[in-house]
Amino acid sequence: MRIFNFSAGPAVLPQEVLERAAKELVCYGNAGMSVMEMSHRSASYEEIHAEALQLMRELLNVPSNYKILFLQGGASQQFAMIPMNLSKNGTADFVITGEWATRAYKEAGKVLNAKVAATSEAEKFAVIPEITSISPDADYLHICTNNTICGTRFTKLPETGNIPLVADMSSGILSEVFDISKFGLIYAGAQKNIGPAGVTVVIIREDLLENENAKKLPAFLQYKTHSDAGSMYNTPPTYAIYMTKLCLEWLKSKGGVAGIQKTNEAKAKILYDFLDNSPLFKGIADKAHRSLMNVPFTTGDEAKDKAFVKEAAAAGLANLGGHRLVGGLRASIYNAMPTEGVQALVDFMKKFEGK
Amino acid sequence: MRIFNFSAGPAVLPQEVLERAAKELVCYGNAGMSVMEMSHRSASYEEIHAEALQLMRELLNVPSNYKILFLQGGASQQFAMIPMNLSKNGTADFVITGEWATRAYKEAGKVLNAKVAATSEAEKFAVIPEITSISPDADYLHICTNNTICGTRFTKLPETGNIPLVADMSSGILSEVFDISKFGLIYAGAQKNIGPAGVTVVIIREDLLENENAKKLPAFLQYKTHSDAGSMYNTPPTYAIYMTKLCLEWLKSKGGVAGIQKTNEAKAKILYDFLDNSPLFKGIADKAHRSLMNVPFTTGDEAKDKAFVKEAAAAGLANLGGHRLVGGLRASIYNAMPTEGVQALVDFMKKFEGK
Repeated sequence: MRIFNFSAGPAVLPQEVLERAAKELVCYGNAGMSVMEMSHRSASYEEIHAEALQLMRELLNVPSNYKILFLQGGASQQFAMIPMNLSKNGTADFVITGEWATRAYKEAGKVLNAKVAATSEAEKFAVIPEITSISPDADYLHICTNNTICGTRFTKLPETGNIPLVADMSSGILSEVFDISKFGLIYAGAQKNIGPAGVTVVIIREDLLENENAKKLPAFLQYKTHSDAGSMYNTPPTYAIYMTKLCLEWLKSKGGVAGIQKTNEAKAKILYDFLDNSPLFKGIADKAHRSLMNVPFTTGDEAKDKAFVKEAAAAGLANLGGHRLVGGLRASIYNAMPTEGVQALVDFMKKFEGK
Repeated sequence: MRIFNFSAGPAVLPQEVLERAAKELVCYGNAGMSVMEMSHRSASYEEIHAEALQLMRELLNVPSNYKILFLQGGASQQFAMIPMNLSKNGTADFVITGEWATRAYKEAGKVLNAKVAATSEAEKFAVIPEITSISPDADYLHICTNNTICGTRFTKLPETGNIPLVADMSSGILSEVFDISKFGLIYAGAQKNIGPAGVTVVIIREDLLENENAKKLPAFLQYKTHSDAGSMYNTPPTYAIYMTKLCLEWLKSKGGVAGIQKTNEAKAKILYDFLDNSPLFKGIADKAHRSLMNVPFTTGDEAKDKAFVKEAAAAGLANLGGHRLVGGLRASIYNAMPTEGVQALVDFMKKFEGK
């Protein structure tokens, strides 16, 4: 029996997608083999690869002057590749909104002069800070649009003028409509809203591929290498890309990003409305910057929080503990979490309050 | 219906493994979810991860002073990471035995002073060259133990004394017994003999993790980061690692590496014996250095080679074309290729000859 999985990532995938994958795992269509066994240079795999890229372009409405890359290594590898590939003046600005934004900043600091443009560390990252100035010579401004641990999100993008806006969208991508043309580069590990762990999506404006410093890097570390090769410079993570394609087809059938955004807003509202009126539980993030995907909350009592996680798991509501760095509770309610899952969680919280 | 898949990678996987994976894809054991949906920090995934690492250690007989890492990005990423992590004197030696060994050499040359210790380019890589000297200040000597494209392999490892031997083992790992203690570092993309594409295995002697130059790199690019974190610094490619575990369990059930080596030798002998006596087909690689895994051959006539690939595919023998860089024909007969597959290929070649 399947349970409701509130994990922050890897996370719940659509059940229909898993069922289809199971059915065609041993033999895919007329290929006479599993997708996992296909040469990445075969016509059958190339079709899957091209469809996944095309669906991503369509669903995110990616302008034609942007390239979509399927890479590996997650956001963590991007923390290194971005400064290596985008550095011209040797300096970049960072908005510090949580653990992952901090890591992006620290890792970039090993490659260039990384500066803090704004931070909400003093507010324990419960808000998105205002950005009052950007270094005029910054090669880019880096933000994390949705903060998985603290449950905040940018509800309005910073205006950066000619300075490319770079965004870690790992937990926000495909959950709400973004205007991709506002960004220079976005990146996201797949394991939240795209597909299973093992593929990383990078969307980059073409002019940023032409960087003289980047051309001195080993080929693998250059975006241009992967862009020129259609994400086939080396063997891609073929099965993860196939699963991504199935998830994107599912998303399209749900009305695309605009359609799922409505569902996500309604789902999040169920949980936030409950939290705003609960005598026991309270939300952590500032109301103005609440995430639609990750909802951290707490009873304010560590022992009660722990009891809640344990009892909820026994009731089929799994992975409700907060991130190990902050504790408390957290429900991640990505695209694939059905409304019934959120409703079941709220019902269980009511019952728990009653005790 | 499943066909015989002679692809060089991604390649055939054991049918039993695929069937088991299909059965537990939607719901794994009592977890109430797919392996793809499990948090990498959950007890159920951690068990899979630890078992995969332990099986790898056991099957390869990895000494206790070596770390096993599950990374991403394939051999291509290692072409950059190895020189970045192992460079002390800023120089390394390379044995050039084919396309992949050449790429390793060229990419390392962007990081350090890469020197050719030996090459068989003049022999079109049909032999393994003799290594007559190694630079005394080389940080390592790099070889590719099995050459997927040309079908050669090292039947005897070079003696490197105190200089670490580094080996790309992508297409040879787990196919025959190696003494891991002879190496400083070995690496292999999974998609040939380990599991599906998307995971890369690195086995590194512990002393090589302590390199002062490496400590200045972004965390993701340091082996030490991944070693210290048990290959969980970032979200690992969880499903690919689960599939790897299933493949390793299968290999163990076949008598481990020593057991499969006997089968591999017998399988390869069927094909080589046929080639050595065929009036039409002939093998490419020098007899003294023949690969057990990749068998390139040709009719000597491009049109006939093409016709063979096409007719074989129609008969359920897929992916027999040579690598796009060299043309001709090639049968890759990894661990998971059953003896019946090789026999069916030889039977078909006989029939083709008759026409």
